Amino acid sequence: MRFVGICQYDGSNYAGFQSQKNAPSIQDNLELAIASIGTLEGRINYAGRTDAGVHATGQIFDFMAKNYRDSDQWIKGLNSLLPNDIAVSSIVEAPDEFHSRFDAINRTYSYVIYVGKVQPIFFKNYVCWEKNKIDLDIMRSEAASLIGTHNFSAFRGSKCTSKNPVRTIKSIDIAKKGNFIIITLCANAYLYNMVRIIVGTLLDISKGSAKDIKTILNSQNRKNAGITAKAQGLFFTGAKYEKIDLDISSSSSNPLNFLMSSII
Amino acid sequence: MRFVGICQYDGSNYAGFQSQKNAPSIQDNLELAIASIGTLEGRINYAGRTDAGVHATGQIFDFMAKNYRDSDQWIKGLNSLLPNDIAVSSIVEAPDEFHSRFDAINRTYSYVIYVGKVQPIFFKNYVCWEKNKIDLDIMRSEAASLIGTHNFSAFRGSKCTSKNPVRTIKSIDIAKKGNFIIITLCANAYLYNMVRIIVGTLLDISKGSAKDIKTILNSQNRKNAGITAKAQGLFFTGAKYEKIDLDISSSSSNPLNFLMSSII
Repeated sequence: MRFVGICQYDGSNYAGFQSQKNAPSIQDNLELAIASIGTLEGRINYAGRTDAGVHATGQIFDFMAKNYRDSDQWIKGLNSLLPNDIAVSSIVEAPDEFHSRFDAINRTYSYVIYVGKVQPIFFKNYVCWEKNKIDLDIMRSEAASLIGTHNFSAFRGSKCTSKNPVRTIKSIDIAKKGNFIIITLCANAYLYNMVRIIVGTLLDISKGSAKDIKTILNSQNRKNAGITAKAQGLFFTGAKYEKIDLDISSSSSNPLNFLMSSII
Repeated sequence: MRFVGICQYDGSNYAGFQSQKNAPSIQDNLELAIASIGTLEGRINYAGRTDAGVHATGQIFDFMAKNYRDSDQWIKGLNSLLPNDIAVSSIVEAPDEFHSRFDAINRTYSYVIYVGKVQPIFFKNYVCWEKNKIDLDIMRSEAASLIGTHNFSAFRGSKCTSKNPVRTIKSIDIAKKGNFIIITLCANAYLYNMVRIIVGTLLDISKGSAKDIKTILNSQNRKNAGITAKAQGLFFTGAKYEKIDLDISSSSSNPLNFLMSSII
């Protein structure tokens, strides 16, 4: 039978979500834990491949297991086996045909920037630190040009292997909370490094050191976009499905909401 | 001339604030950085000695320097030399006779507990994780018995070398924010491990596994108190002086306020 789960991880000490030779991955750790509890059949599927140093507050994964376990058994069992920077918060039974990657109709990432003169020492692995003021008005008006269906060739990393550079960005929200700026993107899917290049470009534009978004987008040339923002500020916060209703809204809409667990 | 400063540190990788042989300390790092910039005379003084793994959002320190530097020069210079888990947020000139330890009329610590079934992976070094529900009403009513001037022998660690076990607790505030419980103590001074033993005892009492505070206090016997709560949840958040007005209220009243930098 198939199960679908939600997990959180601090990506600081991993080479990324996807299993790799000779490097620690989230996938290997999850599969090892699942196999120990319920006889894993094949490999797990997952909603979004995150790079080295990228975190998740709402990564979705699914798998086939030979042995039935209820939610509580899965969650307690997995969390007792997983390292202390990966946690599973939910596991439910899913239709056999469910696939967390192919069935996702959109995926959400948030990028966290800390603006201040003094380094945010307690958050250093979870934010990109900017010493200079950011012009949010410019950032927001430029970000608006990214919304919709576009050829995002200018915003994809050189290692991108996708044949089709067209993606649909449904929303970009830029929120300021104290010293933090949180940029939240919702899209059907992403090209390699797309979120980090978008964030880096918006940062460059807000400092006056890059072309405007429309010009960059139309050029379809990576050289016209800005830097690739650091991995550590990026959080995969959730995916949405038509076939299945996963209650991830409260934990995954915003990494800081999750970090704070409604401290706010 | 004398200068007084405020610093923050993540104590996870240090053996404590105080300089020690063959172990990394906050004091050694601060002194090395100050000496590089302004010719340090003697050693630094500091408001509160924190143990291994204990953090600070508002540690106060002072020192004599031969060379004058203005606030900006000190802050930029020190932060460029300090490791990325120690930061200085303020340095101002102080009267020559000022002493951050002897002149402090009270010191504030906050202890952060995370209550939830799933480990708070992004906060694991900054909280004490409790899986079971905590009865806040019991905790608050028991904590009230600690306020005032008492012999705190029951709440001091075996390594305590203080001749006088009498201290004055001015306030204990117990706040709940989402999954977090933040216990904030303000006292003139503390015995060794006093905050951690108080927190551990309040946790034990709230779970029904310890005597009441009045009985423990009156017994003057450490054996009657609860466990020593883990170092990682403890933050030194500030000290108050009559002679000098340090603007630390915004950054130091609450470690989470600082962590969040007014995200809330």
